[in-house]
Amino acid sequence: MRSRVLSGMRPTGALHLGHYHGAIKNWVQLQHTHDCFFFVADWHALTTSPDKHQTLSAHVYDMVVDWLAAGIDPDQATLFIQSRLPEHAELFTLLAMHTPLSWLERTPSYKDRIAKLGEGESPTFGFLGYPLLQAADILIYRAQHVPVGEDQAPHVEITREVARRFNHLHGAGRTEPVLIEPQVLLTDTARLPGLDGEKMSKSLGNTIAMRDEPEAVATKVRKMPTDPQRVRREDAGEPTRCPVWALHAVYTPEATRDTLAADCRQARTGCLDCKQPLIDAIVREQQPWRERAERYLANPKQVQWIVELGTERARTVARQTMKDVREAIGLAY
Amino acid sequence: MRSRVLSGMRPTGALHLGHYHGAIKNWVQLQHTHDCFFFVADWHALTTSPDKHQTLSAHVYDMVVDWLAAGIDPDQATLFIQSRLPEHAELFTLLAMHTPLSWLERTPSYKDRIAKLGEGESPTFGFLGYPLLQAADILIYRAQHVPVGEDQAPHVEITREVARRFNHLHGAGRTEPVLIEPQVLLTDTARLPGLDGEKMSKSLGNTIAMRDEPEAVATKVRKMPTDPQRVRREDAGEPTRCPVWALHAVYTPEATRDTLAADCRQARTGCLDCKQPLIDAIVREQQPWRERAERYLANPKQVQWIVELGTERARTVARQTMKDVREAIGLAY
Ligand code: SF4
Ligand code: SF4
Repeated sequence: MRSRVLSGMRPTGALHLGHYHGAIKNWVQLQHTHDCFFFVADWHALTTSPDKHQTLSAHVYDMVVDWLAAGIDPDQATLFIQSRLPEHAELFTLLAMHTPLSWLERTPSYKDRIAKLGEGESPTFGFLGYPLLQAADILIYRAQHVPVGEDQAPHVEITREVARRFNHLHGAGRTEPVLIEPQVLLTDTARLPGLDGEKMSKSLGNTIAMRDEPEAVATKVRKMPTDPQRVRREDAGEPTRCPVWALHAVYTPEATRDTLAADCRQARTGCLDCKQPLIDAIVREQQPWRERAERYLANPKQVQWIVELGTERARTVARQTMKDVREAIGLAY
Repeated sequence: MRSRVLSGMRPTGALHLGHYHGAIKNWVQLQHTHDCFFFVADWHALTTSPDKHQTLSAHVYDMVVDWLAAGIDPDQATLFIQSRLPEHAELFTLLAMHTPLSWLERTPSYKDRIAKLGEGESPTFGFLGYPLLQAADILIYRAQHVPVGEDQAPHVEITREVARRFNHLHGAGRTEPVLIEPQVLLTDTARLPGLDGEKMSKSLGNTIAMRDEPEAVATKVRKMPTDPQRVRREDAGEPTRCPVWALHAVYTPEATRDTLAADCRQARTGCLDCKQPLIDAIVREQQPWRERAERYLANPKQVQWIVELGTERARTVARQTMKDVREAIGLAY
């Protein structure tokens, strides 16, 4: 049997190339080797801004369309929406009774947040509980693997601790553990910088969307700042000082990059020339996404149906786990 | 329409006279004037001892039998089990995203607990969230009233704040508030001391169970300590120094009490004589409970059926609230 992988993503609307290279590309590969459960983490979106969610619905479906556009195959992977499965909340609530506050208070993301708060500001109870909700998301599907970047590894570690404690308290007399301690699946992803060299992020306005039109891509890349010391065409440049170069690192074959770098350093070509192969590579990458997206956008019912089916598939697994969990705790009456 | 009342009780097994006079007696009255929802707070039982619950199932049904024995009428009141309604957990999870940690950290019960913890001990995340789970229990039924003792009033205040904040964030453009701020229903209850004069509590082993047999009641009361200064029959006693007197205050009419007090102070009667009318009164009070309990115990399926029906009735209300809540947040897709 394929080992199960769980991964989720907050619905922030149309995805950008940073999402693709940072996660989705990896999901597309994983679906061929693992039993993949991919979910829209819409409750998690509320942990940071509970008050701005009248657009959530559009964001959820935009994101799912992008997953499908990227090549996620709904016959291979199970796609679903967290908030449609109250079972996650039930497990979260039960695990809350078992989890020392101190485990949550020491997570890096919580400490970061606390450090940034002003006098008299308080994070929400839900923000503190965010890694525990994540643990519930993972444990309820008995996922063996969680693909994460290194910064997320502490959250998987809490999930493992939570599972271990639960099994220890309630596992007496069982041949199999009630909850499964997931393994981190460190994945080969690329952190794609944004148009300004900072982290690509919608809130920074420095993104190329997965479904941006070719003209939009061309305009955005052409406007990108380059090596600040290459003011005129005749000035020699240094790729390592240039935000464009970080994109080349992802999109351009090494041999071509060597030529481009040499040309830049000797001022043989202009920046627009240097950017053109990048524009071409991005547009080429996007081509199949745009085609698939068009088909799904022409048929929104189909997308809903995919999510519906995935949610029911997920529910079957989640219900079985909750049955076992309730039984183990002694709540099955 | 009758206004709705919600109240819950942790399943600690067979109830004692302290439970009856402190809450259940009041429930029996409320069911005639209000739309009463009474529930078994089994998740709450986990907040304090998550690891000792293999007996929970027996405790749940013992308690429900005691409710019915006391005269709770399942045709009037809705009886149900919290853990059977994952909707409570869903609302708890959503409210967690809206609730500042500081609101929970400042509740008296939490501060008490923290003060009593040893070095390096941590309360659980669930213990900190207990008043919020309680808020979810109340708000999900849109209860207008919550019957509480004064020590519980701060928890109802949090519930009101949570509802207010939710309505403020998500109520734009609505004619009716999504969640209803419940009112405290300060109730006329008696705090019945235990056999030793301390708070009546199972863990102190000083209880008279609602379903104790008459002989057991007689033995327990006869063994009760009395005024420590009344060593021999001939010594004059002082009722205010006597644990038995606190029970007389609940069970014995004032005129009789005056006589008993005078007899005690002048050493006219012995303590066993003084205790006899108390024993009689308790046994008389228990008589109808025992009869009803017998009928239910002879037919456990009926009790399960009552809980089943109540749970489904509760679910209908809870589901409607969650539908409105999801819609208000923007999660209805
Ligand atoms: S030639 Fe290319 S690498 Fe050099 S500065 Fe211009 S865009 Fe950057
Ligand atoms: S006579 Fe009654 S009130 Fe007085 S000490 Fe004895 S039991 Fe207590």
